[in-house]
Formats: sequence, structure tokens, C-alpha cells
Amino acid sequence: MISRNQYIANLKAGYLFPEIAKKRREYAASHPGVKIISLGVGNTTEPILPHINAALVEGAKKLGVLEGYSGYQDEGLPSLREKISEVFYSGKFSIDEIFISDGAKCDIGRLQTLFGAGTKIAVQDPSYPVYVDGSVLTGAAGIWEGNGYAGITYLPCTAENNFFPNLDAVPRNSLVYFCSPNNPTGAAATCDQLNALVKTAIDRGCIIIFDAAYSEFIRDSKLPKTIYGIDNAASCAIEVNSFSKPAGFTGVRLGWSVVPKAIKYSGGESVNADWSRIAGTIFNGASNIAQAGGLAALDSEGLKEIRALTDFYLGNAKIIRDTLVKLGITCIGGGNSPYIWARFPGRDSWEVFQEILEKCQVVTTPGIGFGPAGQSFIRFSAFGHREDVEEACKRLEKLA
Amino acid sequence: MISRNQYIANLKAGYLFPEIAKKRREYAASHPGVKIISLGVGNTTEPILPHINAALVEGAKKLGVLEGYSGYQDEGLPSLREKISEVFYSGKFSIDEIFISDGAKCDIGRLQTLFGAGTKIAVQDPSYPVYVDGSVLTGAAGIWEGNGYAGITYLPCTAENNFFPNLDAVPRNSLVYFCSPNNPTGAAATCDQLNALVKTAIDRGCIIIFDAAYSEFIRDSKLPKTIYGIDNAASCAIEVNSFSKPAGFTGVRLGWSVVPKAIKYSGGESVNADWSRIAGTIFNGASNIAQAGGLAALDSEGLKEIRALTDFYLGNAKIIRDTLVKLGITCIGGGNSPYIWARFPGRDSWEVFQEILEKCQVVTTPGIGFGPAGQSFIRFSAFGHREDVEEACKRLEKLA
Repeated sequence: MISRNQYIANLKAGYLFPEIAKKRREYAASHPGVKIISLGVGNTTEPILPHINAALVEGAKKLGVLEGYSGYQDEGLPSLREKISEVFYSGKFSIDEIFISDGAKCDIGRLQTLFGAGTKIAVQDPSYPVYVDGSVLTGAAGIWEGNGYAGITYLPCTAENNFFPNLDAVPRNSLVYFCSPNNPTGAAATCDQLNALVKTAIDRGCIIIFDAAYSEFIRDSKLPKTIYGIDNAASCAIEVNSFSKPAGFTGVRLGWSVVPKAIKYSGGESVNADWSRIAGTIFNGASNIAQAGGLAALDSEGLKEIRALTDFYLGNAKIIRDTLVKLGITCIGGGNSPYIWARFPGRDSWEVFQEILEKCQVVTTPGIGFGPAGQSFIRFSAFGHREDVEEACKRLEKLA
Repeated sequence: MISRNQYIANLKAGYLFPEIAKKRREYAASHPGVKIISLGVGNTTEPILPHINAALVEGAKKLGVLEGYSGYQDEGLPSLREKISEVFYSGKFSIDEIFISDGAKCDIGRLQTLFGAGTKIAVQDPSYPVYVDGSVLTGAAGIWEGNGYAGITYLPCTAENNFFPNLDAVPRNSLVYFCSPNNPTGAAATCDQLNALVKTAIDRGCIIIFDAAYSEFIRDSKLPKTIYGIDNAASCAIEVNSFSKPAGFTGVRLGWSVVPKAIKYSGGESVNADWSRIAGTIFNGASNIAQAGGLAALDSEGLKEIRALTDFYLGNAKIIRDTLVKLGITCIGGGNSPYIWARFPGRDSWEVFQEILEKCQVVTTPGIGFGPAGQSFIRFSAFGHREDVEEACKRLEKLA
């Protein structure tokens, strides 16, 4: 018989969010009739706004008529790739440096194919679980050592360092995952911080995978929305982004990655050329309907809708944050991101998760699920209907 | 700096279809004004039929209203998974054995994550390139040896064996890719043949990845449309399928995989449990709009449309096959599949490809692109508008 990919055994039991869903189901089953509110998984809840939605509808209609029909669109519609370059990067990338995907998470999984099992990995700690879990599957993470993986350098982001890691710990020749605005902490890195990150990467021969999925939530105009706002980033950073949160496309599935031609491996080979070959081999493009919607999301009407939708969720974030502050709970995030990261000193994350579920019937995300430094933290997600968020916040007062 | 995944260097230069597209572009550039017709890549050309299309439009509209909005739908809509089990498998699989994907090719890429670099691979020769290229990326294929990869057992499918391989050559404990109706040969395996395949797999401790993407083109009612029509297949076979060709969804992106709970690794671990974990980790679900369309494709109206659309392409296949036969070119396929596999004895595939392009301005696919046994063959695809297929066939008479 065939043996299992040896690296799968290194994965911890369950992916974080299905685990949370399970605990929610268990609670619901033993408390029938109780309304549970989720401030847990970052799943969008508000309808897609009219201009962008009309483009999705039109995209679907077109496939029903001869003149509008289209099939495989592997690397993505050229018009969408051009528009992404223009809107997000002042046109500085050519369309063959921009790859349309079915979402940031899926592309992060595929991007790991570029690098081998021997790759050293560094992640912000806490961080979005896919960086680590994906690295486990490629073999780069190595074995679980009780508090982290042997092959991963965890870069703690704590209240003490203002949730920006000490870059001295970044290993030479490593693949560095960096997310800003951060999921889960909500911290958005400054220009100076990202300058230091890029400088470190170049000095140490690292490649950065920069996850900018929450860039459209940035309201402080001094904060960079893309790593490419930093000098020389195009020689060392791949940027991954998504329409999921800004346009409400979590169920539509559309994202993109920028793989600049300037990035090289140690042997001088082009990372862009490999990515083009790999994406063409194990991927078949995003839905043409989704791409029609994405194109509309980036025209002037669409960008207004993105602003309105992210404003709405930031409004939720403020309500949550104000509630926590009132309760005397220390927290960050929420101003330039849809996540609030709240500290419960000395407590176990899952225990706090369970307490909030039982006392308030509110689902959150235990910080430890994002990495060792997430212990004693809880992530509150601002994705929810306004009345649910308000109701949840009322219930949270029981924590006082 | 970071080194390249060592396995990427083992990939041959370009993925087949982009290579063909490049040759087409080159010809077009030096012959402006000439109308090139493609019987090359298997890309659908006909609009999505009204009932299914209306469901896609409705699926898009729903996302614009509060009551209809939905976000992440990781493993796929339960209703769609249930419907797939009912329509294709007489309800014999539970919904947690059916995983909705964004297409068969993407899932084939991800499924390879289940098995390690040490896995022995067997493929029909010729075969769809992703089985081999995907295995190269996981390291299982090993190095290129001029006429094939060191770690892959090629099972020749030739006129001599009626395009069904000699199963004696299947290595013990190997992962066996099998596609029926076959891409590229168009051969559809019989019950007896698939019985022999399943028996071989069980006797030798193999797992089959059965690609049934063309099952809806089968017209001979004695031919099985799924591997699970064969006794005991659920203990050794994963089936991959897609809405791309039967419903015209190449640009919509929707497929599924069946990973039965009965399949185990050599260590006794559940393949289904791993797949559930992996799919949740590096994938985020197919578009909800596509899934709404898929659901409609499987009701009684939708199934009639699938029949009509596949009938249309099979009509094209008959025209192409009749033309080739009239020209005295030996060929198979086309009766239960949208591909015709034509033999040009003693000739080099790329040379015939180029001759057809230059003499007839028709793009085809050189058989060698599908594996060593594809040398001297050309694949003709029946995906095209009727008038283009007719025009292409008229031009093909110049080959006489």
C-alpha cells in the first residue's frame, strides 16, 4: 500500500477554524434555542454592493450568449491584471508579474511549491495559520516540538515590541511571511518598519511573502498599503492580496499575487518564470464571473463601494474595541484593520474562548491558534451584521 | 538567498498548452489576416445553456441581497455534494466523501500533496500532462531521462493493445493515474477493463486517481461512467470530475473529487481525513456562484442541457473523425469522447502539428506532448463552433 506523505503527520490535529466551528456546534447542540453570535472567523456578512454586484450578474449573463462566452482564462483577464497594476501599484508592474488567483489563501498554498523542503521559514508570531500549516505540508516546517515547529523561526509580536517583531531574529536565506495590517493582531506596520523589513530581507538573502489582504482597511494615510511602497521591495518581496474582505468576495473567490521579475533564487533562476510555469500546471484560473466583478470593483464606482464596505466593518471594529476598553481589557487593532486583539493576562486562550462562548454565547478566536505568542489573547473579528455586533457587545459586558 | 525547489528544475521547459499557444501566436504574427482555427486545447466554445445559466445569474444576484448573501463555503454547499452523490453515485457516498473543487486540474495538483516524494507513479501513456508535471513538483517523478521521468512507470496505450495498457507493468504500492474516456486518445474503458484495473490496484496495494472529466460524453450504455461502478473500487480509487466540459464551465471553475472513507494508507491512516484537513488548509472552496450553477446542472432540466451540449460536441467529433477517415488517416476516439487521436506513422508529432498549422491554418495538439507513446500522433479536439469545425475539416483535405 501507499504510504502517507510523511509531512502530514506533522500537522497538528485540526485547522483552526473548523475546530472552532466544532466547538460552536457542540455548544449549540447542548443549548438549543440559544442565539450564538460569531465574532470568530473573518467571514464577510454584508451583501456585495450594487455596482460590483451588477458586474457579477453581467459576467454570469455573458456566459449564456455566444458573443460573451469565454472559457479558460489561465493567468487571468489581461484587463484585470492591468487594472490591478494601475490601481494598487501605479502601473509599475507589467501584466506578466500579476497573477489572478481564486484567493490569497489558495495562492499562499501554491506559492510554497516554489521553495523546497529545506527552506528556512520565519513568521510573525502570532500569524495566520496557513503560513505555518502550508510549510508543514512542504516539509519546510519540520516536526512539532510542543510549542512550535522545529524549522520555523517565530518572530514574537507582543505588547512589549508594539506588535512589530525584532528583525535580528530573521534567519539568513529564509522565506519570511509578513502580514500587514496583521491578522490576527490588527497592527499595521509603518513605513519605517517595512523599510527595516525590506532592508533585512535584502541583507540576509531572504524572500518576503507579504500578505496585504487587509490593505483596504488602512485609514491612516501615513501607513503603506503595499510592500512595494518601500524602495527595493520588488527585488525581494512577493505580494498576495484578495478581493475577499474589501469587496465581500469571500464566497466569490478572487485574489491576486504579484511576483516581480526582479526576484531571483540563489542560483539566479527567475522566480517569476517558475511561478508562471507552476500556476499554469496546477491551477486553471479564477472564475471569469468573479473576474468581471473584480474589474468593476476597481473602477471609480467600485472603489467607492470598497471604501463604504470597509468603513462599515471598521465601524463594527470601533464598537467592539470601545466595549473592550470600557471593560478594562487591553487591546490593539481595529483602527486600520477588521481585527481586535485582546489580552487576558495569565489566562489560557481556549479557556477564555470557552468562557466567552458560555457566558455570552459569542464565538471568538483563541489567540494560541495563531502561534505561541498568541497565548492569553483573543481575536475579535469585526465581520458581522451591525445589530449582531451590538448585541454581542452588550453580552460581552457580562465579562466585567 | 533562497534556493529553488529542486524539483522544478526537473520540469521540462513549458506546460504543453502555453507552448502551443506560443507557436500559434508566432504563426499568426508572420501571417497577418489569416484565420487560424483551433482544434487544439480542449476549451469549450458554446454558451452555457439557459437553465444552468439562469442559475449562475441568480447565484450572482443573491450575493447582492442580505437574505441571499453567503461567504466562505469551504468544503462546498451540502446540497450540491448530496446532489452529486445522488446523480453520479446512486447516493452511495456521504457528503463528507465528496469535496467541491474549482476544477479537476486544480484538485489533481492538490491531491498529490497526500503522497510523498517517494511515491511510485504509474500513468497511461499518453496521458493528460498534469499527472506527470504535478508528480514532478512533488518530487515523485524524479529526473527527466530524455524519453520519460525516472520515477514514473509509463503504461503504453497503443493501437496494438487497443489503447488499454498492459496492467502487468503496474508497480506494487504505486499511485495510478487513469483517465476514461481518455484524454488524449478518446478511448473509453469497458467494465471488464476497469474490473481488471481495480483488481490490479487491490492486489498490488495501489491507489487509483480516476479522472472521469469526460464521463458525460459516453454514449455506449455498456461503458461505465464512474470507477465506482466497479466492485471494491471505493477501497482503492479517488475519482476526480468536473463541470467544465459537460456544462461549459471551463471559465466558471467547478469540479469535485470523491475520496471514499474506505481508502487507507499503508499505515492504516484515513486518506479521507487527511484530504479534509489539507483541502481546508490550502484551499478555500469554489465560487458560490459556480456552485449555484452546478446545482442547476444536476436537476432534470440541467441534465438535459448537459446531454444537449455534449451531443453538440460529439457531433463535431463525428465530423472530424469522418474527415480523417476519408483522408485515410487511422484514428480512434470521438464516439464517447470529444477527442480524436490520429496516427501519422513514422512522423514526428511536432512536425505534423507544424505542417497542419502551415497547410491548413488549423491548430492541433502534438501527441508527444502527452507522453512518449504519443509520438507520431495528433490529438484533434471537438471543442469549437460548428462552422469552424466544418471549415477546419475542409482545410484538412489539403493533407491528402
